[in-house]
Amino acid sequence: MKLHDALMRQGYHIKSRVWIEGERGTFLAEGRIRLLEHIITKGSISQAAKEMKMSYRKAWEIIDGMNKEGNEPLVTRISGGKNGGGTIVTDYGKKMIEFYNEVNKNCQEYLRGQINSLYEV
Amino acid sequence: MKLHDALMRQGYHIKSRVWIEGERGTFLAEGRIRLLEHIITKGSISQAAKEMKMSYRKAWEIIDGMNKEGNEPLVTRISGGKNGGGTIVTDYGKKMIEFYNEVNKNCQEYLRGQINSLYEV
Repeated sequence: MKLHDALMRQGYHIKSRVWIEGERGTFLAEGRIRLLEHIITKGSISQAAKEMKMSYRKAWEIIDGMNKEGNEPLVTRISGGKNGGGTIVTDYGKKMIEFYNEVNKNCQEYLRGQINSLYEV
Repeated sequence: MKLHDALMRQGYHIKSRVWIEGERGTFLAEGRIRLLEHIITKGSISQAAKEMKMSYRKAWEIIDGMNKEGNEPLVTRISGGKNGGGTIVTDYGKKMIEFYNEVNKNCQEYLRGQINSLYEV
């Protein structure tokens, strides 16, 4: 029996987790990117933290860490304007979301190919 | 500034963790493969567990889980012989080690390429 057959028959799935480390620790990772996405849709750290079922303090620490690890802030507060300001994800932050999601998607596709082909020979 | 430059300048690294899930849960993962490798070199579950700084019970549960999730056992006991028997990793188990390590290595190489090339355009 070829390994490929052995693996596919029982419905095995290959999973992965990708993260980017900076000089002082984690920069981008799955949960961090989801947090940034919630900040975009909810417009506040406290609402985004709620969606993630984490404390405001935890969310703030993650954001503070990312802001320090990045070349530019990923999240910032804006004041004034017709909605009285709020918390936004910067263009740099949006680029990091896009980058992470693309790498992650590519990695998953690559691994699906691996499990399908590696031991077919 | 291109994202590629931004990411490389500060010495970012891309990391990954890969695992294979079966129908009832995890089948192969980083720590499980290291445990199997230690069983090969040490010849016993208790010695391998020690290397991994885990309890014998924990090591045994992991092995039992892998044996149930696999198409064949990955670890088995042999009795008799000039060394009085012992615990061995089966050929099937060795194939799984090889498979996992190869997928993992390929994934890391793929991701290094991703961080180098994705945003060079």
